[in-house]
Amino acid sequence: MAKIATVVTNMVEDVEYTSPKEALEKAGHELVTIDVKAGTVEGKHGEKIVIDKGIDDVDAKGFDALFIPGGFSPDILRADDRVVAFVKTFMDDMKPVFAICHGPQLLITARTLDGRDATGYKSIQVDLENAGAKFHDEEVFVCQNQLVTSRTPDDLPAFNREIVKLLG
Amino acid sequence: MAKIATVVTNMVEDVEYTSPKEALEKAGHELVTIDVKAGTVEGKHGEKIVIDKGIDDVDAKGFDALFIPGGFSPDILRADDRVVAFVKTFMDDMKPVFAICHGPQLLITARTLDGRDATGYKSIQVDLENAGAKFHDEEVFVCQNQLVTSRTPDDLPAFNREIVKLLG
Repeated sequence: MAKIATVVTNMVEDVEYTSPKEALEKAGHELVTIDVKAGTVEGKHGEKIVIDKGIDDVDAKGFDALFIPGGFSPDILRADDRVVAFVKTFMDDMKPVFAICHGPQLLITARTLDGRDATGYKSIQVDLENAGAKFHDEEVFVCQNQLVTSRTPDDLPAFNREIVKLLG
Repeated sequence: MAKIATVVTNMVEDVEYTSPKEALEKAGHELVTIDVKAGTVEGKHGEKIVIDKGIDDVDAKGFDALFIPGGFSPDILRADDRVVAFVKTFMDDMKPVFAICHGPQLLITARTLDGRDATGYKSIQVDLENAGAKFHDEEVFVCQNQLVTSRTPDDLPAFNREIVKLLG
């Protein structure tokens, strides 16, 4: 079973965290929530999320996969160079990475999408294309059996299905 | 005196709207607030802002300049193709454009920054560079006496000084 680093902070799109978390845990995987520091954060719609680890207390080597829920959380997180470096490691190592909605913003700032295939929330489409990714306006896109991306909460059934499937 | 289109919606960084508005009005200019539709929106910190016009009720030709305050407002607005097209017209016509913090996100989605000089909030630096802009980590940057950008609320004194100066 996989140990999944979940980078999340305030203003996350609540259901883009809670729904994949439920699907992944039901499949037997473990999520570890990570922010700039440990504590509690709050989603756009009031969901309280306990942060297990601060970014200085984790090593990407200790995880099997990375999950980035959307909302405004990814944009807040990518202002921190340590979070960006952490995310980059998963992409460089070709470990499974799951990003929905604004989640790919962190992958852009980590400069890891050139030549890759991805989707994301409409507002970041041009950013994804400028980053060198081919944008797919589809509910879910699985790139090289490693990077799974989706657009909005409506895509969660497809997103959850593919991330659980990819982890086997 | 200039008539300034101000594109703004919910989750704007309040002071990045109120402070330039005060400086511009003090200099005798007029701001017209524009969102997807007329009504009232609310800033990140509770500022209530009356929206004068919906995007379908305005024509860029009727304005002398464009102002884009930051926060999460620009990312919400750039999901609307009409707002993106409106913003693009000001850049294409080389009319004065003032954008602070996340404001340049709208200019990226309008594909108007290739070869330009700009600054912005740290989280969008890579997006700006990928869009073809040269990024300047300075409190304010004036590009071709047309495009004025700043990074954060701390830069507001410099931003306000330059936008008022540019309008003469």
